[in-house]
Amino acid sequence: MEKKKIILDCDPGHDDAIAIMLAAKSKTIDLLGISIVAGNQTIDKTLKNALNVCQYLGLDVPVYPGCGQPMIRDKQVIAGDIHGESGLDGPVFEPLTKKAERKHGVDFLIETLLESDGDITVVTTGPMTNLGMAIRLCPDIVPKIKEIVLMGGCYQLGNVTPAAEFNIIADADAAHVAFTCGRKITMVGLDVTRKVLCYPEIMERMGKNENIASKLFIDLMTFFNKSQKEVYGWEGGPLHDPVTIAYLIDPTVLTVKEMFTQIDIRSEQSYGRTNCDFFHYTNNEPNSFVAIDIDTTKFWDIIEHGIREYN
Amino acid sequence: MEKKKIILDCDPGHDDAIAIMLAAKSKTIDLLGISIVAGNQTIDKTLKNALNVCQYLGLDVPVYPGCGQPMIRDKQVIAGDIHGESGLDGPVFEPLTKKAERKHGVDFLIETLLESDGDITVVTTGPMTNLGMAIRLCPDIVPKIKEIVLMGGCYQLGNVTPAAEFNIIADADAAHVAFTCGRKITMVGLDVTRKVLCYPEIMERMGKNENIASKLFIDLMTFFNKSQKEVYGWEGGPLHDPVTIAYLIDPTVLTVKEMFTQIDIRSEQSYGRTNCDFFHYTNNEPNSFVAIDIDTTKFWDIIEHGIREYN
Amino acid sequence: MEKKKIILDCDPGHDDAIAIMLAAKSKTIDLLGISIVAGNQTIDKTLKNALNVCQYLGLDVPVYPGCGQPMIRDKQVIAGDIHGESGLDGPVFEPLTKKAERKHGVDFLIETLLESDGDITVVTTGPMTNLGMAIRLCPDIVPKIKEIVLMGGCYQLGNVTPAAEFNIIADADAAHVAFTCGRKITMVGLDVTRKVLCYPEIMERMGKNENIASKLFIDLMTFFNKSQKEVYGWEGGPLHDPVTIAYLIDPTVLTVKEMFTQIDIRSEQSYGRTNCDFFHYTNNEPNSFVAIDIDTTKFWDIIEHGIREYN
Amino acid sequence: MEKKKIILDCDPGHDDAIAIMLAAKSKTIDLLGISIVAGNQTIDKTLKNALNVCQYLGLDVPVYPGCGQPMIRDKQVIAGDIHGESGLDGPVFEPLTKKAERKHGVDFLIETLLESDGDITVVTTGPMTNLGMAIRLCPDIVPKIKEIVLMGGCYQLGNVTPAAEFNIIADADAAHVAFTCGRKITMVGLDVTRKVLCYPEIMERMGKNENIASKLFIDLMTFFNKSQKEVYGWEGGPLHDPVTIAYLIDPTVLTVKEMFTQIDIRSEQSYGRTNCDFFHYTNNEPNSFVAIDIDTTKFWDIIEHGIREYN
Ligand SMILES: [Ca+2]
Ligand SMILES: [Ca+2]
Ligand SMILES: [Ca+2]
Ligand SMILES: [Ca+2]
Repeated sequence: MEKKKIILDCDPGHDDAIAIMLAAKSKTIDLLGISIVAGNQTIDKTLKNALNVCQYLGLDVPVYPGCGQPMIRDKQVIAGDIHGESGLDGPVFEPLTKKAERKHGVDFLIETLLESDGDITVVTTGPMTNLGMAIRLCPDIVPKIKEIVLMGGCYQLGNVTPAAEFNIIADADAAHVAFTCGRKITMVGLDVTRKVLCYPEIMERMGKNENIASKLFIDLMTFFNKSQKEVYGWEGGPLHDPVTIAYLIDPTVLTVKEMFTQIDIRSEQSYGRTNCDFFHYTNNEPNSFVAIDIDTTKFWDIIEHGIREYN
Repeated sequence: MEKKKIILDCDPGHDDAIAIMLAAKSKTIDLLGISIVAGNQTIDKTLKNALNVCQYLGLDVPVYPGCGQPMIRDKQVIAGDIHGESGLDGPVFEPLTKKAERKHGVDFLIETLLESDGDITVVTTGPMTNLGMAIRLCPDIVPKIKEIVLMGGCYQLGNVTPAAEFNIIADADAAHVAFTCGRKITMVGLDVTRKVLCYPEIMERMGKNENIASKLFIDLMTFFNKSQKEVYGWEGGPLHDPVTIAYLIDPTVLTVKEMFTQIDIRSEQSYGRTNCDFFHYTNNEPNSFVAIDIDTTKFWDIIEHGIREYN
Repeated sequence: MEKKKIILDCDPGHDDAIAIMLAAKSKTIDLLGISIVAGNQTIDKTLKNALNVCQYLGLDVPVYPGCGQPMIRDKQVIAGDIHGESGLDGPVFEPLTKKAERKHGVDFLIETLLESDGDITVVTTGPMTNLGMAIRLCPDIVPKIKEIVLMGGCYQLGNVTPAAEFNIIADADAAHVAFTCGRKITMVGLDVTRKVLCYPEIMERMGKNENIASKLFIDLMTFFNKSQKEVYGWEGGPLHDPVTIAYLIDPTVLTVKEMFTQIDIRSEQSYGRTNCDFFHYTNNEPNSFVAIDIDTTKFWDIIEHGIREYN
Repeated sequence: MEKKKIILDCDPGHDDAIAIMLAAKSKTIDLLGISIVAGNQTIDKTLKNALNVCQYLGLDVPVYPGCGQPMIRDKQVIAGDIHGESGLDGPVFEPLTKKAERKHGVDFLIETLLESDGDITVVTTGPMTNLGMAIRLCPDIVPKIKEIVLMGGCYQLGNVTPAAEFNIIADADAAHVAFTCGRKITMVGLDVTRKVLCYPEIMERMGKNENIASKLFIDLMTFFNKSQKEVYGWEGGPLHDPVTIAYLIDPTVLTVKEMFTQIDIRSEQSYGRTNCDFFHYTNNEPNSFVAIDIDTTKFWDIIEHGIREYN
């Protein structure tokens, strides 16, 4: 089977780090490059975190610095309460020697897609700024995108405001550009990612696989679980971002439903709401596939399998 | 035990009709009067429906015609697809002899509350127009309201748009007035009412209680289930409105959580969203109690018990 | 010639006070009653101010207390910086003996209009709350309204925000109800009222008419001009509200243009903007007559004539 | 005197064409390049129009194709009713041989500004998409911008909706990025450009200067005046865009006032309104210089002088 070519656009971030770990060594995925965006922390920190993760795991994948600010919003929302001062608090890394590419993440997206045969999936696990900018700067890339798979949004409760999820509210305008670009888009939102909580028994199970990946997993999730508990009261943190990669490795891990999704970009109170027309009330043509359920057993198996690839 | 005094403000509507049935004969409730609002159908029809239900069940409760239009919105949203041309399709009633009161529903609310000892609960199972108008016309009623219990809203999926529930979107401005008036307000939203689906086995069970109430229940729900199936694909229709009355009869039927709830009245796309701060992200003082779970066994027992009161 | 019957709905306020003075003794106007709304100050103060003005001028016109809060907005915007602590700073009045009516201003509007032959003009020189409430509480009054003439709005610069004028922003929702009710509505906005600035030479001219009205005029405008200068830098304050009455006395004082006007009630930043389709860009049917120019010579003549009626 | 270095970002367009003509040969301006954006017509047409104008006038200035779509809005608003099918109806051009540069307009902006000594003024006479994209793609350019001078906005009446002017409503989000970037920004809006109407006597005066520039002026304005008359009823079309260039040639042509300006990007009805805090009501720090008056005599002298440079 041919590997699925992907670009991973992310803002590491604990769960982004695990998404990188999962994607980089998967036998079903060909990780062409990582573009970085501000989100869980400022761009300089998310970039450094991505480089640290790659260096630590010995990954030879290029990392491109992208946008440090949302397309329109004045201020970058960051998530220091969840991901800590560095954006990746917990693990201690060796001095950083891996270098970021000089090319801008947006240019990397544009050039890679333009040169492709239309076989690249763009996975975003942070604010969708880089993709939104790339689409508007060079609309010719749109027909070249095979699929967009994003972690973001929710049709139930948000996690930054009652209405909105972090990756979307951080740059709802960019998300709007992506959702209206006309390509297949699969939304992996809180509705499913909140079902994969990293409970103590999961920690124990993953920890048993003694290698660099399991160590990173434990170091990351120990911090992450703690802050999730402080903010939301959960015993285990939800492993949001890796669900996108798990889905590409094994699509049956998710149940998805085709529906019309519209981003609210003109409300102050509900800015960033992903209004998913689950029941097809409106007569709008579906423009998205929205994850509505997850097979958590399969998911944790995929994670464990991913860790073992580092043996 | 003293009966709980309530005013039922409604827009019958199938589930409103069952709420009336349940409230009027309950030994724990003193139904002071019914005020009518446009909603499931136009005001002339919802008024007629309320009178028909009272006449059919032999109820000697006064019925007051209220507002036929939302406070601000230009057009009344109605729900003919769900409740039929009459707003109460299904049952066939005798010629109507019961008369509506001449007093306006808003004046009934104001006068009754002003003269009270602060012991009246206002239950709304339609758009909150009458209550909103009463509060703004005579703010002195506010400290006289014991509690507002409403069927409306959702923190998950809406039922008119992805964002909003019918009773709220029909007059979100009025809902905003109620939610910000400063009195205790309990929101019984789709998050719980969608769990009490009137499946065939419920129909059978209620039908066995052979009296006028069970006949009304069956006649109503046969039509209602059919339209719910056509619109939402469910095998049984959700019995929204009676949950408010069931809650007043036995508060343990619901699990409620105190939180801040804000109505989006300034968005076009998310107009009428009840942004419930379930996780207390915002620092806003809680202003509402929101139903987050329902004991369905208890609920159906209350319904059956209510039907039997008509033996 | 038959007198024009009017109800004056106002929030005195310096310019409201002069509107009362002008309307009450005009030979072309039959002032049926004055309904009061919160606006320039809180409702208790604007009510007291209206009573004081009537008592001082010896007017036997009934004064009805109306709404103390906008239809939907949480907080009443007041204009203490312009009208002072009392809402009518400047003149010193005798102890107040004139009593307000017990009937609510909204009920006065409803009952008076319902009983009329459709020959009453409703003039609003404050937030349009009372009229909006009356229309929604009893839509049957709408065909009974001969015309609505309001001071409010602007198609150029606002005076509370860059977008909006005071009377409209104070209750844009109510204004929306009035502008969409379907009756003839004439908007006298800042675009013309800012052209009648009460310069020193006007003060001198009016002062020469030595009677109680000229004394009131001078006492009011001395304070008003001072605060207008502090806030806007003008040498004379704009005599907003009386323009409505002057227009009813002599319609040729204004140039009006028929156009579509829409109130922005769903924006945070432009809330209360009166979007007047001056150039007929949109295809919307005109719903309003908007004042676009004023004959200032005629206007001051009308004012002086009005003062002389008190000789 | 050193020439002022400018980049002209435009969407020709009749008045853009005259802005190009004026800028290219001015002894006080050094026109570094022209970047093109969609606006008056689609990007392919506005690009072609710019090339045609340059070729016709014998200008050796590089022309860069930019964005064909607003940053966030789904659809490009165009102005075919004003500028015709081609976007520059009226003149007939020779077959086009001048070629557009291959570099993207956004990259031209970024690279030119980065390499500069901070002495370049960016003039935009179309939607501000290219500049907004450049700022977000490379925030390092911001301190390198000497000044932004834009034709766009209004604090009085719009020309697409009652609220908004064409260049801003076409991409209000981009305008928001520019107005909040922190650099000096001078807004030349309809409030002044509507005062320079190209009446018949102006046509006659410019026509007397018999050269290629006057011929272009007459050919353009003959068509433009006709469509302006059809749409707005004016005898002469307003020469919007060249006012920016005239201002750079002689700043005394405009009276500008420093104030806070905010773009409404979250309203549906007032989207694109430039809320200019003319009276400093709000306590917001001024972020813009807004043109509030124009010396029309000086302006037409500058235009005629500009035409004569082609002798
Ligand atoms: Ca992430
Ligand atoms: Ca109902
Ligand atoms: Ca007033
Ligand atoms: Ca232009």
